[in-house]
Amino acid sequence: MTEIPRDHPRYESLSLRETITRCVELGITSRQGLIAHGRGEAIDYLIGEKTLPTALKAEDAAVATLLTAKNPVISVNGNTAALVPEETIELAELIGAKIEINLFHRTEERIARIKDHLERLGAEDVLGLEPDEKIPGLTSERAKVSKKGIFSADAVLVPLEDGDRCESLVRMGKIVIAIDINPFSRTSRMAQISIIDNVIRAMPNMIACAKVLTENAVPKKDLLAMIEAFDNRENLNETIKEIKRGLNEGRLEESTGYSKLSIW
Amino acid sequence: MTEIPRDHPRYESLSLRETITRCVELGITSRQGLIAHGRGEAIDYLIGEKTLPTALKAEDAAVATLLTAKNPVISVNGNTAALVPEETIELAELIGAKIEINLFHRTEERIARIKDHLERLGAEDVLGLEPDEKIPGLTSERAKVSKKGIFSADAVLVPLEDGDRCESLVRMGKIVIAIDINPFSRTSRMAQISIIDNVIRAMPNMIACAKVLTENAVPKKDLLAMIEAFDNRENLNETIKEIKRGLNEGRLEESTGYSKLSIW
Repeated sequence: MTEIPRDHPRYESLSLRETITRCVELGITSRQGLIAHGRGEAIDYLIGEKTLPTALKAEDAAVATLLTAKNPVISVNGNTAALVPEETIELAELIGAKIEINLFHRTEERIARIKDHLERLGAEDVLGLEPDEKIPGLTSERAKVSKKGIFSADAVLVPLEDGDRCESLVRMGKIVIAIDINPFSRTSRMAQISIIDNVIRAMPNMIACAKVLTENAVPKKDLLAMIEAFDNRENLNETIKEIKRGLNEGRLEESTGYSKLSIW
Repeated sequence: MTEIPRDHPRYESLSLRETITRCVELGITSRQGLIAHGRGEAIDYLIGEKTLPTALKAEDAAVATLLTAKNPVISVNGNTAALVPEETIELAELIGAKIEINLFHRTEERIARIKDHLERLGAEDVLGLEPDEKIPGLTSERAKVSKKGIFSADAVLVPLEDGDRCESLVRMGKIVIAIDINPFSRTSRMAQISIIDNVIRAMPNMIACAKVLTENAVPKKDLLAMIEAFDNRENLNETIKEIKRGLNEGRLEESTGYSKLSIW
Protein backbone atom coordinates (compact mmCIF):
# COMPACT_ATOMS: atom_id res chain seq x y z
CA MET A 1 0.00 0.00 0.00
CA THR A 2 1.42 3.39 -0.99
CA GLU A 3 1.09 6.17 1.58
CA ILE A 4 -0.37 9.31 0.04
CA PRO A 5 0.34 12.62 1.78
CA ARG A 6 -2.85 14.54 2.68
CA ASP A 7 -1.59 17.69 0.97
CA HIS A 8 -0.95 15.97 -2.36
CA PRO A 9 -2.85 17.88 -5.06
CA ARG A 10 -4.27 14.58 -6.29
CA TYR A 11 -4.96 13.20 -2.81
CA GLU A 12 -8.59 12.25 -3.41
CA SER A 13 -8.00 10.56 -6.73
CA LEU A 14 -4.94 8.68 -5.47
CA SER A 15 -6.77 7.59 -2.32
CA LEU A 16 -9.60 6.19 -4.43
CA ARG A 17 -7.02 4.24 -6.40
CA GLU A 18 -5.63 2.81 -3.20
CA THR A 19 -9.15 1.96 -1.99
CA ILE A 20 -10.15 0.15 -5.13
CA THR A 21 -6.79 -1.61 -5.37
CA ARG A 22 -7.20 -2.81 -1.78
CA CYS A 23 -10.68 -4.05 -2.67
CA VAL A 24 -9.14 -6.24 -5.37
CA GLU A 25 -6.93 -7.75 -2.68
CA LEU A 26 -10.04 -8.31 -0.54
CA GLY A 27 -11.78 -10.10 -3.41
CA ILE A 28 -14.48 -7.44 -3.75
CA THR A 29 -13.43 -5.82 -7.02
CA SER A 30 -12.26 -7.62 -10.14
CA ARG A 31 -8.97 -6.80 -11.84
CA GLN A 32 -10.96 -5.74 -14.88
CA GLY A 33 -12.74 -3.33 -12.55
CA LEU A 34 -9.44 -1.53 -12.03
CA ILE A 35 -9.13 -0.92 -15.78
CA ALA A 36 -12.70 0.40 -15.83
CA HIS A 37 -11.83 2.67 -12.93
CA GLY A 38 -8.91 4.07 -14.91
CA ARG A 39 -11.16 4.78 -17.90
CA GLY A 40 -13.54 6.56 -15.56
CA GLU A 41 -10.71 8.67 -14.16
CA ALA A 42 -9.69 9.86 -17.61
CA ILE A 43 -13.27 10.66 -18.66
CA ASP A 44 -13.68 12.54 -15.39
CA TYR A 45 -10.79 14.84 -16.41
CA LEU A 46 -12.84 15.76 -19.48
CA ILE A 47 -15.75 16.68 -17.26
CA GLY A 48 -13.50 18.70 -14.98
CA GLU A 49 -13.92 16.37 -11.97
CA LYS A 50 -17.08 18.12 -10.85
CA THR A 51 -20.81 17.50 -11.11
CA LEU A 52 -22.19 19.27 -14.16
CA PRO A 53 -25.56 21.05 -13.76
CA THR A 54 -27.04 18.50 -16.20
CA ALA A 55 -25.86 15.67 -13.96
CA LEU A 56 -27.53 17.23 -10.93
CA LYS A 57 -30.77 17.46 -12.91
CA ALA A 58 -30.56 13.76 -13.76
CA GLU A 59 -29.72 12.89 -10.15
CA ASP A 60 -32.81 14.74 -8.89
CA ALA A 61 -35.05 13.10 -11.50
CA ALA A 62 -33.54 9.74 -10.54
CA VAL A 63 -34.35 10.18 -6.87
CA ALA A 64 -37.93 11.23 -7.67
CA THR A 65 -38.25 8.13 -9.86
CA LEU A 66 -36.91 5.80 -7.19
CA LEU A 67 -39.19 7.37 -4.55
CA THR A 68 -42.29 6.81 -6.67
CA ALA A 69 -41.31 3.27 -7.72
CA LYS A 70 -43.10 0.27 -6.21
CA ASN A 71 -40.05 -1.97 -6.07
CA PRO A 72 -36.87 0.05 -6.58
CA VAL A 73 -33.60 -1.85 -6.57
CA ILE A 74 -29.99 -0.67 -6.47
CA SER A 75 -27.71 -2.99 -8.41
CA VAL A 76 -24.22 -3.22 -6.94
CA ASN A 77 -21.06 -4.41 -8.65
CA GLY A 78 -17.47 -4.70 -7.44
CA ASN A 79 -16.51 -1.11 -8.18
CA THR A 80 -19.63 0.33 -6.54
CA ALA A 81 -19.03 -1.82 -3.47
CA ALA A 82 -15.46 -0.56 -3.32
CA LEU A 83 -16.07 3.12 -3.94
CA VAL A 84 -19.44 3.96 -2.37
CA PRO A 85 -20.60 1.13 -0.09
CA GLU A 86 -21.88 3.35 2.74
CA GLU A 87 -23.54 5.77 0.35
CA THR A 88 -25.31 2.89 -1.39
CA ILE A 89 -26.68 1.65 1.91
CA GLU A 90 -27.77 5.13 2.99
CA LEU A 91 -29.48 5.86 -0.32
CA ALA A 92 -31.24 2.49 -0.29
CA GLU A 93 -32.61 3.23 3.18
CA LEU A 94 -33.76 6.73 2.24
CA ILE A 95 -35.62 5.64 -0.87
CA GLY A 96 -36.76 2.27 0.44
CA ALA A 97 -34.84 0.27 -2.17
CA LYS A 98 -33.47 -3.25 -2.10
CA ILE A 99 -29.78 -3.84 -2.77
CA GLU A 100 -28.81 -6.61 -5.17
CA ILE A 101 -25.28 -7.63 -6.09
CA ASN A 102 -24.86 -8.30 -9.78
CA LEU A 103 -21.43 -8.83 -11.30
CA PHE A 104 -20.15 -8.81 -14.83
CA HIS A 105 -17.28 -11.12 -13.88
CA ARG A 106 -19.50 -13.18 -11.59
CA THR A 107 -18.15 -15.63 -9.06
CA GLU A 108 -20.03 -16.94 -6.02
CA GLU A 109 -17.05 -16.09 -3.87
CA ARG A 110 -16.91 -12.46 -4.91
CA ILE A 111 -20.65 -12.02 -4.37
CA ALA A 112 -20.30 -13.49 -0.89
CA ARG A 113 -17.44 -11.12 -0.11
CA ILE A 114 -19.36 -8.07 -1.32
CA LYS A 115 -22.43 -9.17 0.67
CA ASP A 116 -20.27 -9.55 3.75
CA HIS A 117 -18.62 -6.15 3.12
CA LEU A 118 -22.00 -4.40 2.79
CA GLU A 119 -23.52 -6.19 5.78
CA ARG A 120 -20.59 -5.28 7.97
CA LEU A 121 -21.32 -1.66 7.04
CA GLY A 122 -24.95 -2.06 8.11
CA ALA A 123 -26.82 -3.34 5.06
CA GLU A 124 -29.57 -5.88 5.63
CA ASP A 125 -30.97 -8.53 3.33
CA VAL A 126 -28.54 -7.99 0.46
CA LEU A 127 -29.73 -9.95 -2.58
CA GLY A 128 -27.70 -11.61 -5.31
CA LEU A 129 -26.12 -14.65 -3.73
CA GLU A 130 -29.01 -16.98 -4.55
CA PRO A 131 -30.38 -15.91 -7.92
CA ASP A 132 -33.64 -17.64 -8.89
CA GLU A 133 -34.40 -15.86 -12.18
CA LYS A 134 -32.68 -14.78 -15.35
CA ILE A 135 -32.79 -11.58 -17.39
CA PRO A 136 -34.10 -12.64 -20.81
CA GLY A 137 -31.73 -12.15 -23.74
CA LEU A 138 -28.50 -12.43 -21.79
CA THR A 139 -26.58 -15.68 -22.01
CA SER A 140 -23.77 -14.91 -19.64
CA GLU A 141 -23.48 -15.15 -15.91
CA ARG A 142 -24.70 -11.56 -15.75
CA ALA A 143 -28.24 -12.77 -16.47
CA LYS A 144 -28.62 -14.29 -13.01
CA VAL A 145 -30.87 -12.18 -10.81
CA SER A 146 -33.17 -12.54 -7.84
CA LYS A 147 -36.93 -12.76 -8.38
CA LYS A 148 -37.87 -10.39 -5.60
CA GLY A 149 -35.07 -8.00 -6.54
CA ILE A 150 -33.97 -6.94 -10.02
CA PHE A 151 -36.28 -9.39 -11.81
CA SER A 152 -39.47 -7.86 -10.44
CA ALA A 153 -38.17 -4.30 -9.94
CA ASP A 154 -39.96 -1.48 -11.70
CA ALA A 155 -37.00 0.91 -11.32
CA VAL A 156 -33.34 -0.11 -11.13
CA LEU A 157 -30.41 2.11 -10.29
CA VAL A 158 -27.37 0.69 -12.03
CA PRO A 159 -24.12 2.42 -11.19
CA LEU A 160 -21.23 1.47 -13.53
CA GLU A 161 -23.31 -0.89 -15.62
CA ASP A 162 -22.41 -2.74 -18.80
CA GLY A 163 -24.30 -1.87 -21.96
CA ASP A 164 -25.74 -5.31 -22.72
CA ARG A 165 -27.35 -5.68 -19.37
CA CYS A 166 -28.63 -2.12 -19.37
CA GLU A 167 -30.29 -2.79 -22.71
CA SER A 168 -31.87 -6.03 -21.47
CA LEU A 169 -33.27 -4.35 -18.37
CA VAL A 170 -34.82 -1.62 -20.51
CA ARG A 171 -36.35 -4.31 -22.78
CA MET A 172 -37.92 -5.89 -19.70
CA GLY A 173 -39.87 -2.66 -19.29
CA LYS A 174 -38.02 -1.36 -16.28
CA ILE A 175 -37.03 2.22 -15.68
CA VAL A 176 -33.26 2.07 -15.76
CA ILE A 177 -31.24 4.79 -14.08
CA ALA A 178 -27.56 4.58 -14.96
CA ILE A 179 -24.63 6.28 -13.28
CA ASP A 180 -21.94 6.30 -15.94
CA ILE A 181 -19.34 9.01 -16.36
CA ASN A 182 -19.18 8.35 -20.08
CA PRO A 183 -21.97 10.09 -21.99
CA PHE A 184 -21.12 8.15 -25.14
CA SER A 185 -21.47 4.68 -23.67
CA ARG A 186 -24.26 2.35 -24.69
CA THR A 187 -25.40 2.33 -21.08
CA SER A 188 -25.80 6.12 -21.10
CA ARG A 189 -27.69 5.93 -24.37
CA MET A 190 -29.96 3.07 -23.35
CA ALA A 191 -30.94 4.21 -19.87
CA GLN A 192 -34.09 6.24 -19.25
CA ILE A 193 -32.17 8.42 -16.84
CA SER A 194 -28.46 8.80 -17.54
CA ILE A 195 -26.41 10.34 -14.77
CA ILE A 196 -23.12 11.46 -16.32
CA ASP A 197 -21.11 11.86 -13.17
CA ASN A 198 -18.49 10.13 -11.08
CA VAL A 199 -20.27 7.67 -8.79
CA ILE A 200 -18.42 9.14 -5.81
CA ARG A 201 -20.13 12.49 -6.44
CA ALA A 202 -23.44 11.15 -7.77
CA MET A 203 -24.31 9.09 -4.71
CA PRO A 204 -23.87 11.88 -2.13
CA ASN A 205 -25.82 14.22 -4.42
CA MET A 206 -28.66 11.70 -4.61
CA ILE A 207 -28.60 11.20 -0.85
CA ALA A 208 -28.88 14.97 -0.35
CA CYS A 209 -31.81 15.13 -2.76
CA ALA A 210 -33.53 12.12 -1.18
CA LYS A 211 -33.24 13.74 2.26
CA VAL A 212 -34.84 16.97 1.05
CA LEU A 213 -37.67 15.17 -0.70
CA THR A 214 -38.43 12.78 2.18
CA GLU A 215 -37.92 15.20 5.08
CA ASN A 216 -40.27 17.65 3.40
CA ALA A 217 -42.70 14.85 2.55
CA VAL A 218 -42.97 16.11 -1.02
CA PRO A 219 -46.24 14.67 -2.37
CA LYS A 220 -46.26 12.04 -5.10
CA LYS A 221 -47.81 14.35 -7.70
CA ASP A 222 -44.92 16.78 -7.27
CA LEU A 223 -42.41 13.94 -7.64
CA LEU A 224 -44.19 12.84 -10.82
CA ALA A 225 -44.04 16.42 -12.09
CA MET A 226 -40.26 16.44 -11.44
CA ILE A 227 -39.89 13.27 -13.50
CA GLU A 228 -42.15 14.63 -16.23
CA ALA A 229 -40.06 17.79 -16.53
CA PHE A 230 -36.89 15.80 -17.15
CA ASP A 231 -35.93 15.03 -20.77
CA ASN A 232 -33.06 12.53 -20.76
CA ARG A 233 -32.09 12.87 -24.41
CA GLU A 234 -31.99 16.64 -24.22
CA ASN A 235 -30.05 16.47 -20.98
CA LEU A 236 -27.54 14.03 -22.48
CA ASN A 237 -27.04 16.23 -25.54
CA GLU A 238 -26.55 19.26 -23.31
CA THR A 239 -23.97 17.30 -21.29
CA ILE A 240 -22.00 16.42 -24.41
CA LYS A 241 -22.12 20.04 -25.57
CA GLU A 242 -20.88 21.20 -22.17
CA ILE A 243 -17.99 18.72 -22.23
CA LYS A 244 -16.93 19.91 -25.68
CA ARG A 245 -17.27 23.53 -24.62
CA GLY A 246 -14.99 22.84 -21.67
CA LEU A 247 -12.44 21.12 -23.88
CA ASN A 248 -12.35 23.97 -26.34
CA GLU A 249 -11.89 26.43 -23.51
CA GLY A 250 -8.92 24.48 -22.14
CA ARG A 251 -10.60 22.53 -19.35
CA LEU A 252 -8.42 19.51 -19.90
CA GLU A 253 -5.20 21.50 -19.71
CA GLU A 254 -6.30 23.47 -16.67
CA SER A 255 -8.07 20.67 -14.89
CA THR A 256 -6.57 19.27 -11.75
CA GLY A 257 -6.30 16.07 -13.73
CA TYR A 258 -3.41 15.00 -15.85
CA SER A 259 -1.36 18.16 -15.99
CA LYS A 260 -0.74 18.04 -12.23
CA LEU A 261 -0.68 14.29 -12.04
CA SER A 262 2.58 12.73 -11.00
CA ILE A 263 1.55 9.11 -11.32
CA TRP A 264 0.91 7.66 -14.74
CA MET B 1 -9.91 -15.64 -17.87
CA THR B 2 -12.75 -14.43 -20.08
CA GLU B 3 -12.82 -15.84 -23.61
CA ILE B 4 -13.20 -13.07 -26.19
CA PRO B 5 -14.63 -14.03 -29.59
CA ARG B 6 -12.32 -13.08 -32.49
CA ASP B 7 -15.14 -11.26 -34.28
CA HIS B 8 -15.93 -9.02 -31.30
CA PRO B 9 -15.76 -5.38 -32.50
CA ARG B 10 -13.57 -4.59 -29.51
CA TYR B 11 -11.45 -7.76 -29.80
CA GLU B 12 -8.06 -6.07 -29.73
CA SER B 13 -8.85 -3.79 -26.80
CA LEU B 14 -10.46 -6.59 -24.79
CA SER B 15 -7.54 -8.94 -25.52
CA LEU B 16 -5.09 -6.35 -24.26
CA ARG B 17 -7.15 -6.11 -21.08
CA GLU B 18 -6.93 -9.86 -20.64
CA THR B 19 -3.17 -9.78 -21.32
CA ILE B 20 -2.46 -7.08 -18.79
CA THR B 21 -4.79 -8.63 -16.23
CA ARG B 22 -2.99 -11.95 -16.65
CA CYS B 23 0.32 -10.13 -16.17
CA VAL B 24 -0.92 -8.91 -12.79
CA GLU B 25 -1.55 -12.53 -11.86
CA LEU B 26 1.98 -13.37 -13.01
CA GLY B 27 3.42 -10.61 -10.83
CA ILE B 28 4.68 -8.58 -13.79
CA THR B 29 2.24 -5.68 -13.70
CA SER B 30 1.05 -3.85 -10.60
CA ARG B 31 -2.62 -3.39 -9.79
CA GLN B 32 -2.13 0.35 -10.11
CA GLY B 33 -0.85 -0.41 -13.61
CA LEU B 34 -4.33 -1.67 -14.50
CA ILE B 35 -5.85 1.66 -13.53
CA ALA B 36 -3.24 3.44 -15.65
CA HIS B 37 -4.10 1.12 -18.52
CA GLY B 38 -7.74 2.11 -18.22
CA ARG B 39 -6.86 5.80 -18.33
CA GLY B 40 -4.82 5.12 -21.43
CA GLU B 41 -7.75 3.32 -23.06
CA ALA B 42 -10.05 6.28 -22.52
CA ILE B 43 -7.52 8.82 -23.82
CA ASP B 44 -6.99 6.56 -26.85
CA TYR B 45 -10.69 6.94 -27.67
CA LEU B 46 -10.10 10.69 -27.89
CA ILE B 47 -7.28 10.11 -30.34
CA GLY B 48 -9.43 7.73 -32.39
CA GLU B 49 -7.33 4.64 -31.58
CA LYS B 50 -4.93 5.33 -34.41
CA THR B 51 -1.47 6.86 -34.78
CA LEU B 52 -1.78 10.55 -35.57
CA PRO B 53 0.62 11.97 -38.19
CA THR B 54 2.24 14.04 -35.44
CA ALA B 55 2.91 10.86 -33.45
CA LEU B 56 4.61 9.23 -36.43
CA LYS B 57 6.82 12.31 -36.78
CA ALA B 58 7.84 12.02 -33.13
CA GLU B 59 8.44 8.28 -33.52
CA ASP B 60 10.78 8.85 -36.45
CA ALA B 61 12.68 11.61 -34.62
CA ALA B 62 12.91 9.30 -31.60
CA VAL B 63 14.46 6.48 -33.62
CA ALA B 64 16.97 8.85 -35.21
CA THR B 65 17.86 10.12 -31.73
CA LEU B 66 18.33 6.64 -30.32
CA LEU B 67 20.44 5.58 -33.31
CA THR B 68 22.81 8.53 -32.86
CA ALA B 69 23.03 8.17 -29.07
CA LYS B 70 26.19 6.74 -27.48
CA ASN B 71 24.43 4.84 -24.72
CA PRO B 72 20.70 4.57 -25.45
CA VAL B 73 18.54 2.80 -22.87
CA ILE B 74 14.93 1.61 -22.98
CA SER B 75 13.31 1.85 -19.57
CA VAL B 76 10.74 -0.87 -18.97
CA ASN B 77 7.95 -0.89 -16.41
CA GLY B 78 5.24 -3.44 -15.65
CA ASN B 79 2.80 -2.23 -18.27
CA THR B 80 5.43 -2.09 -21.01
CA ALA B 81 6.58 -5.60 -20.11
CA ALA B 82 2.97 -6.79 -20.30
CA LEU B 83 1.92 -5.05 -23.50
CA VAL B 84 5.00 -4.92 -25.74
CA PRO B 85 7.73 -7.22 -24.43
CA GLU B 86 8.77 -8.64 -27.81
CA GLU B 87 8.63 -5.25 -29.49
CA THR B 88 10.83 -3.78 -26.76
CA ILE B 89 13.43 -6.49 -27.30
CA GLU B 90 13.32 -6.11 -31.08
CA LEU B 91 13.64 -2.32 -30.95
CA ALA B 92 16.51 -2.54 -28.45
CA GLU B 93 18.38 -4.88 -30.81
CA LEU B 94 17.77 -2.70 -33.85
CA ILE B 95 18.98 0.50 -32.21
CA GLY B 96 21.65 -1.11 -30.03
CA ALA B 97 20.03 -0.06 -26.77
CA LYS B 98 20.22 -1.57 -23.30
CA ILE B 99 17.00 -2.57 -21.53
CA GLU B 100 16.57 -1.54 -17.90
CA ILE B 101 13.62 -2.36 -15.68
CA ASN B 102 12.49 0.56 -13.57
CA LEU B 103 9.27 0.45 -11.60
CA PHE B 104 7.15 3.09 -9.91
CA HIS B 105 5.80 0.52 -7.46
CA ARG B 106 9.18 -1.17 -7.13
CA THR B 107 9.64 -4.59 -5.55
CA GLU B 108 12.63 -6.86 -6.06
CA GLU B 109 10.26 -9.71 -6.81
CA ARG B 110 8.44 -7.90 -9.58
CA ILE B 111 11.72 -6.81 -11.18
CA ALA B 112 12.92 -10.41 -11.12
CA ARG B 113 9.70 -11.59 -12.73
CA ILE B 114 9.88 -8.99 -15.48
CA LYS B 115 13.55 -9.84 -16.10
CA ASP B 116 12.63 -13.51 -16.35
CA HIS B 117 9.69 -12.69 -18.66
CA LEU B 118 11.91 -10.64 -21.01
CA GLU B 119 14.75 -13.15 -20.97
CA ARG B 120 12.41 -16.00 -21.82
CA LEU B 121 11.40 -13.95 -24.86
CA GLY B 122 15.05 -13.62 -25.90
CA ALA B 123 16.34 -10.50 -24.12
CA GLU B 124 19.92 -10.59 -22.85
CA ASP B 125 21.54 -8.72 -20.01
CA VAL B 126 18.41 -6.97 -18.73
CA LEU B 127 19.39 -4.33 -16.16
CA GLY B 128 17.47 -3.13 -13.13
CA LEU B 129 17.73 -5.94 -10.60
CA GLU B 130 20.93 -4.69 -9.02
CA PRO B 131 20.81 -0.88 -9.06
CA ASP B 132 24.08 0.78 -8.05
CA GLU B 133 23.17 4.43 -8.57
CA LYS B 134 20.36 6.86 -7.87
CA ILE B 135 18.65 9.53 -9.94
CA PRO B 136 19.29 12.80 -8.07
CA GLY B 137 16.21 14.58 -6.75
CA LEU B 138 14.00 11.53 -6.36
CA THR B 139 13.52 10.14 -2.89
CA SER B 140 11.40 7.14 -3.70
CA GLU B 141 12.25 3.67 -4.84
CA ARG B 142 11.98 4.95 -8.39
CA ALA B 143 15.36 6.64 -8.01
CA LYS B 144 17.23 3.33 -8.09
CA VAL B 145 19.01 2.81 -11.40
CA SER B 146 21.96 1.00 -12.83
CA LYS B 147 25.21 2.88 -13.46
CA LYS B 148 25.89 1.39 -16.87
CA GLY B 149 22.23 1.76 -17.85
CA ILE B 150 19.90 4.68 -17.16
CA PHE B 151 22.40 6.53 -14.96
CA SER B 152 24.99 6.96 -17.70
CA ALA B 153 22.61 6.93 -20.68
CA ASP B 154 22.61 9.93 -23.00
CA ALA B 155 19.17 9.06 -24.44
CA VAL B 156 16.41 7.19 -22.62
CA LEU B 157 13.20 5.87 -24.11
CA VAL B 158 10.59 5.86 -21.36
CA PRO B 159 7.28 4.29 -22.32
CA LEU B 160 4.48 4.99 -19.80
CA GLU B 161 6.65 7.05 -17.47
CA ASP B 162 5.70 9.03 -14.40
CA GLY B 163 6.16 12.79 -14.48
CA ASP B 164 8.57 13.14 -11.54
CA ARG B 165 11.03 10.69 -12.93
CA CYS B 166 10.79 12.12 -16.42
CA GLU B 167 11.60 15.55 -15.02
CA SER B 168 14.58 14.21 -13.05
CA LEU B 169 16.01 12.46 -16.11
CA VAL B 170 15.73 15.67 -18.13
CA ARG B 171 17.50 17.57 -15.31
CA MET B 172 20.34 15.04 -15.50
CA GLY B 173 20.90 16.30 -19.05
CA LYS B 174 19.59 13.23 -20.83
CA ILE B 175 17.51 13.26 -23.97
CA VAL B 176 14.22 11.80 -22.76
CA ILE B 177 11.84 10.24 -25.26
CA ALA B 178 8.44 9.53 -23.73
CA ILE B 179 5.67 7.35 -25.07
CA ASP B 180 2.56 8.66 -23.34
CA ILE B 181 -0.90 8.71 -24.88
CA ASN B 182 -1.79 11.77 -22.83
CA PRO B 183 -0.53 15.00 -24.42
CA PHE B 184 -1.40 16.96 -21.27
CA SER B 185 0.67 14.90 -18.86
CA ARG B 186 3.74 16.28 -17.17
CA THR B 187 5.75 13.52 -18.84
CA SER B 188 4.60 14.68 -22.28
CA ARG B 189 5.44 18.26 -21.40
CA MET B 190 8.84 17.50 -19.88
CA ALA B 191 10.22 15.09 -22.47
CA GLN B 192 12.36 16.32 -25.34
CA ILE B 193 10.51 14.00 -27.69
CA SER B 194 6.88 13.26 -26.73
CA ILE B 195 5.25 10.40 -28.58
CA ILE B 196 1.49 10.80 -28.10
CA ASP B 197 0.42 7.33 -29.09
CA ASN B 198 -0.62 4.01 -27.64
CA VAL B 199 2.52 2.04 -26.82
CA ILE B 200 1.15 -0.94 -28.75
CA ARG B 201 1.16 1.17 -31.93
CA ALA B 202 4.23 3.29 -31.15
CA MET B 203 6.63 0.37 -30.71
CA PRO B 204 5.88 -1.35 -34.05
CA ASN B 205 6.05 2.04 -35.78
CA MET B 206 9.47 2.67 -34.26
CA ILE B 207 10.64 -0.81 -35.22
CA ALA B 208 9.57 -0.18 -38.82
CA CYS B 209 11.42 3.14 -38.86
CA ALA B 210 14.54 1.63 -37.26
CA LYS B 211 14.60 -1.10 -39.92
CA VAL B 212 14.42 1.42 -42.76
CA LEU B 213 17.14 3.63 -41.27
CA THR B 214 19.51 0.76 -40.46
CA GLU B 215 18.92 -1.39 -43.57
CA ASN B 216 19.57 1.65 -45.75
CA ALA B 217 22.56 2.62 -43.60
CA VAL B 218 21.35 6.21 -43.41
CA PRO B 219 24.41 8.32 -42.52
CA LYS B 220 24.68 10.05 -39.17
CA LYS B 221 24.46 13.55 -40.64
CA ASP B 222 21.09 12.67 -42.17
CA LEU B 223 19.88 11.29 -38.84
CA LEU B 224 20.99 14.49 -37.14
CA ALA B 225 19.11 16.49 -39.78
CA MET B 226 15.97 14.46 -39.02
CA ILE B 227 16.31 15.30 -35.34
CA GLU B 228 17.03 18.95 -36.10
CA ALA B 229 13.88 19.22 -38.22
CA PHE B 230 11.68 18.02 -35.36
CA ASP B 231 10.14 20.64 -33.06
CA ASN B 232 8.61 18.88 -30.07
CA ARG B 233 6.61 21.82 -28.71
CA GLU B 234 5.11 22.60 -32.10
CA ASN B 235 4.37 18.90 -32.65
CA LEU B 236 2.69 18.62 -29.24
CA ASN B 237 0.54 21.70 -29.88
CA GLU B 238 -0.44 20.33 -33.28
CA THR B 239 -1.40 17.03 -31.61
CA ILE B 240 -3.65 18.79 -29.11
CA LYS B 241 -5.26 20.79 -31.90
CA GLU B 242 -5.87 17.62 -33.88
CA ILE B 243 -7.47 15.89 -30.87
CA LYS B 244 -9.81 18.85 -30.32
CA ARG B 245 -10.62 18.98 -34.02
CA GLY B 246 -11.54 15.29 -33.91
CA LEU B 247 -13.73 15.78 -30.84
CA ASN B 248 -15.58 18.68 -32.39
CA GLU B 249 -16.17 16.65 -35.51
CA GLY B 250 -17.64 13.77 -33.51
CA ARG B 251 -14.67 11.43 -33.31
CA LEU B 252 -15.55 10.28 -29.82
CA GLU B 253 -19.12 9.39 -30.78
CA GLU B 254 -18.09 7.65 -33.96
CA SER B 255 -14.96 6.02 -32.66
CA THR B 256 -14.93 2.29 -32.20
CA GLY B 257 -14.43 3.10 -28.55
CA TYR B 258 -17.11 3.58 -25.97
CA SER B 259 -20.19 3.71 -28.12
CA LYS B 260 -19.67 0.12 -29.26
CA LEU B 261 -18.16 -1.03 -26.01
CA SER B 262 -20.09 -3.66 -24.13
CA ILE B 263 -17.88 -3.87 -21.09
CA TRP B 264 -17.71 -0.99 -18.70
